[in-house]
Amino acid sequence: MDILNYERFTKQMQFLIEIDKMKTILRKSVIIDMSRRENDAEHSWHLAIMALILYEYAYSSEVDIARVLKMLLVHDIVEIYAGDTFAYDEKGYLDKNSRENDAAVKIFGILPAEQGIEYYNLWVEFDKMDTPDSIYAAAIDRFQPFILNYMTHGHTWKLGSVKSEQVYKRMIAIKQGMPKLWDTVETIIHDSIAKGYII
Amino acid sequence: MDILNYERFTKQMQFLIEIDKMKTILRKSVIIDMSRRENDAEHSWHLAIMALILYEYAYSSEVDIARVLKMLLVHDIVEIYAGDTFAYDEKGYLDKNSRENDAAVKIFGILPAEQGIEYYNLWVEFDKMDTPDSIYAAAIDRFQPFILNYMTHGHTWKLGSVKSEQVYKRMIAIKQGMPKLWDTVETIIHDSIAKGYII
Repeated sequence: MDILNYERFTKQMQFLIEIDKMKTILRKSVIIDMSRRENDAEHSWHLAIMALILYEYAYSSEVDIARVLKMLLVHDIVEIYAGDTFAYDEKGYLDKNSRENDAAVKIFGILPAEQGIEYYNLWVEFDKMDTPDSIYAAAIDRFQPFILNYMTHGHTWKLGSVKSEQVYKRMIAIKQGMPKLWDTVETIIHDSIAKGYII
Repeated sequence: MDILNYERFTKQMQFLIEIDKMKTILRKSVIIDMSRRENDAEHSWHLAIMALILYEYAYSSEVDIARVLKMLLVHDIVEIYAGDTFAYDEKGYLDKNSRENDAAVKIFGILPAEQGIEYYNLWVEFDKMDTPDSIYAAAIDRFQPFILNYMTHGHTWKLGSVKSEQVYKRMIAIKQGMPKLWDTVETIIHDSIAKGYII
């Protein structure tokens, strides 16, 4: 049997055990049967599958799906320490960056250094939205809650008394990352306004 | 704006909405804080990250991590129709294959044909455990509940009055897919017997 670098493996296991807490971080969204709020772990899983299935709509052929999956699987992990900031909470967004950066340093810092740096950088890249991979990943990250909202009669939009301008502003990432789907997004927004899901 | 093949897109969306039900399929395992049972969606997420972080322990350099992620993200989707079969339920395992195959045809059949076939084949490959990707994926699929069990004082093992021979038999996939970790697995099994988690 090969010899294991036990110190390295211990750090990896500490990280994998710590992130179990993602299963307890609740988002504002409810799952489609509306029985309860969605947590960060299952949200991230849903995003990853969505990125795979909708890959053909990515705006650029340079999008590397393996990197996108990595990004989407870890992009919300900082919320273990920083909490979930509601997408339409303008006040919460003021200090979101510094809170989340501290959390990222803390959580990815559990890993062996070179792995920690790799994932920290992926997280930063996702947040900046200025590479093909992060532009597509961000589009997926907007599209999933958008669909959940529509399927649950505007649950989260109603909760925040969200206006159509706010939804348009937030969904602009879809126009950029999955332009073929923009007409559909607009159709859903119009229908949501008509149905009273969005003001 | 490009023209969308709406029929194709609708099938993809139907699939992505249907799999939201993974968030309601409960496993026998509890999450590490022991507050509730784990669901299939968050389990699959945890597996995917584990596969990424522990990749260096994969038994073969031929393991393609992108395919492994795909496999792990969808491998339990059949449980939406077939239900979760407890790993140590020998009776439940008798008709597990036919129940799950029917479920796989049904769920992946929602997708456009060529996508449905791709994911159906990935699911079959995972189940057969005879390729580098599926051998590594299966090792991860055994290792995650093993760690959750140990961290929750043998919760699931106690539930099924599981004997050490049964655990050894089930964990053999780890010996094959991540041989470097086998010593650690044995140490944890010994400790779990000593602590009364396993008979």
